[in-house]
Amino acid sequence: MEFLNKRYLFTPGPVPVAEDVLLSMAQPITHHRLPEFSEILKEIREDLKYLFQTKKEIYFFASSGTGAMESAIVNLFSPQDKVIIVVGGKFGQRWLELSQTYNLDPIVIEVPWGKAVKPEEVEKILKTKKDIKGVLIQACETSTGVKHPIKEIAEIVKDTPAVIVVDAISALGVYDLPMDKWGLDVVITGSQKALSLPPGLSFIAFSDKAQDMAKKSRLPKYYFDLQREKKAYEKNTTAFTPAVSLLIGLRKMLKRIKEIGLEKLFKHYQILSLACRKAVSALNLEIFPEVPSESLTVIKTPNGLNTGELLKFLRSKLGVVFAGGQDHLKGKILRITHMGNQSLFDLLIALSALEMGLNLFGYKVPLGKGIKSAEEVILNYIKEEYL
Amino acid sequence: MEFLNKRYLFTPGPVPVAEDVLLSMAQPITHHRLPEFSEILKEIREDLKYLFQTKKEIYFFASSGTGAMESAIVNLFSPQDKVIIVVGGKFGQRWLELSQTYNLDPIVIEVPWGKAVKPEEVEKILKTKKDIKGVLIQACETSTGVKHPIKEIAEIVKDTPAVIVVDAISALGVYDLPMDKWGLDVVITGSQKALSLPPGLSFIAFSDKAQDMAKKSRLPKYYFDLQREKKAYEKNTTAFTPAVSLLIGLRKMLKRIKEIGLEKLFKHYQILSLACRKAVSALNLEIFPEVPSESLTVIKTPNGLNTGELLKFLRSKLGVVFAGGQDHLKGKILRITHMGNQSLFDLLIALSALEMGLNLFGYKVPLGKGIKSAEEVILNYIKEEYL
Repeated sequence: MEFLNKRYLFTPGPVPVAEDVLLSMAQPITHHRLPEFSEILKEIREDLKYLFQTKKEIYFFASSGTGAMESAIVNLFSPQDKVIIVVGGKFGQRWLELSQTYNLDPIVIEVPWGKAVKPEEVEKILKTKKDIKGVLIQACETSTGVKHPIKEIAEIVKDTPAVIVVDAISALGVYDLPMDKWGLDVVITGSQKALSLPPGLSFIAFSDKAQDMAKKSRLPKYYFDLQREKKAYEKNTTAFTPAVSLLIGLRKMLKRIKEIGLEKLFKHYQILSLACRKAVSALNLEIFPEVPSESLTVIKTPNGLNTGELLKFLRSKLGVVFAGGQDHLKGKILRITHMGNQSLFDLLIALSALEMGLNLFGYKVPLGKGIKSAEEVILNYIKEEYL
Repeated sequence: MEFLNKRYLFTPGPVPVAEDVLLSMAQPITHHRLPEFSEILKEIREDLKYLFQTKKEIYFFASSGTGAMESAIVNLFSPQDKVIIVVGGKFGQRWLELSQTYNLDPIVIEVPWGKAVKPEEVEKILKTKKDIKGVLIQACETSTGVKHPIKEIAEIVKDTPAVIVVDAISALGVYDLPMDKWGLDVVITGSQKALSLPPGLSFIAFSDKAQDMAKKSRLPKYYFDLQREKKAYEKNTTAFTPAVSLLIGLRKMLKRIKEIGLEKLFKHYQILSLACRKAVSALNLEIFPEVPSESLTVIKTPNGLNTGELLKFLRSKLGVVFAGGQDHLKGKILRITHMGNQSLFDLLIALSALEMGLNLFGYKVPLGKGIKSAEEVILNYIKEEYL
């Protein structure tokens, strides 16, 4: 089947991008200091507020999501600042590495990979240590598929001097994370997840509380300096050369998201992830995360299955790309994302590749049984939506 | 789901076109009289011989497939020439209309829509009437999904003064139709079927016997005059302005077909059509044609089903486009094509849309049952092919 050159991307970033968005980015490059580009920037900045559900300004960088995470650290803190870090996977570790790089004083809440943090654990530390400056956490821990209880933790952090810094890279746009309503101080995302764009853009927004804290920050910063971006923002431009073509795609996607409406978009991801989980259960497989995010479905691979070979076969022969596990989860999980320009039908391709792939690699599952369960969920949704 | 703007085209032409082919056609337009374009024409003409399985020259027009059908008529015949026409659907009728337009003397073999012609019927007429000039037929009758017995009929026609004229528009490249080996005198195809290109190009090849007959033709012709094209061919050009961008796409697709190899391509369509038919049976639905072509699967729709509304719903709400029936088959059949840039996975989307659509419109079929049968066929093929 590889002769058709078809690829079905189910990786948790990059994700499939709509053809009309890709084509919009293939238009001749414009210059970022022209007046018409300022107009584009204005639109984008306005529409980003809808996505973030905030009245605050949202800044963006030509960088991967990690760039915005680094920006959060260097703009908020000073050396030796105490921060709580929830580490329950690869991206929690990234907060830790960043805080170590910048000489913060991290207090780690170690969560077993696959589990969600308990808000009480954060509360306990905040109550005993009064000089905590921030709580660094993921909304969705992409490496495990876990959804952390952001709303509850934000509630706790609100009444302390600390700020809550949410890496929502694989969460914003997938499920409800209203920045202003929940009192999230810093929200971060990237282009190659629910925004359904190619990688290359990161985004960050600060609450008033975060902005106040930023004024006292003594960490060195240049490219990721939000003060610099704020000044440029006021002049309808950017501090450095922006990723022009990606921003053209962003404008198109933000308009589409506004047209669809967040509520409908969240529902779409709910159905995709529910249909996938039901299919996985029907195949007698287990869901890995305790509290699964709608962003991706993470499956425990059966004992004895050569997951690496399975993934390679699906990728190279059938064109279906899933993600495996990272670090100690390598070989133990399989990740199917729902983010990006994916229809409910596209999920069936993932499930069929899973059903057939497992059988081919020695783990017998009944063909069609997972798909049947997914179809039931999808059919109900279609009935509700259209009939 | 329509908010994703995704379209799944299962119509028997146009068909889905590969993205890299589409992009190749989006390159700046070149001029058709430049030396480099002559080189492109040379390549195309050589590679078309592989597809047609012939040593003869293949001519092409900027036209729909009907253009090449008209070209066959006007180049081969003279007024009052007797021709046998197999009419078992919309496209057999087209041969009849063309022959009437040009004042031929058609002898119609009327075949019930959905049935294949019996070679003996052709033989009987050829034996009783000695002045028959041609037998006009479809390889695959797209309106019914029937595959006519071309090899057997060619065998019969071979020993008569008549030529066999094969409309292979929805057949060439789908299954084996070797022009030289079977002694087919005229073979016609179009770009928007198994060539997996947009509509806009038609193709025609003549055997020596057909070329000899053409010398005596007295019908008027200008745009579709093959003598004119032959002269241009000898100078590595075309008589009239060719469809430049479509030819760029054609060059790419012909190279791909050569790389894949006809045998593998035919196998691909065999598997797709077999998997689809098995699924249809598993859903207790009937296949309409007596001898089904691998080009498309034509399904009898159950009594009482509002096929028009079903097709409209699938198209407008779920983005899945099937074809219905034409003329007296309107509302009675549903056509799912396998041609074009479709993977085995894409078929599952069609089947899921069918399963869910039937249930939504009051005809209960067990969800997942058709897909399961299709998966069995596909899994066996994958095993044979890759393990």
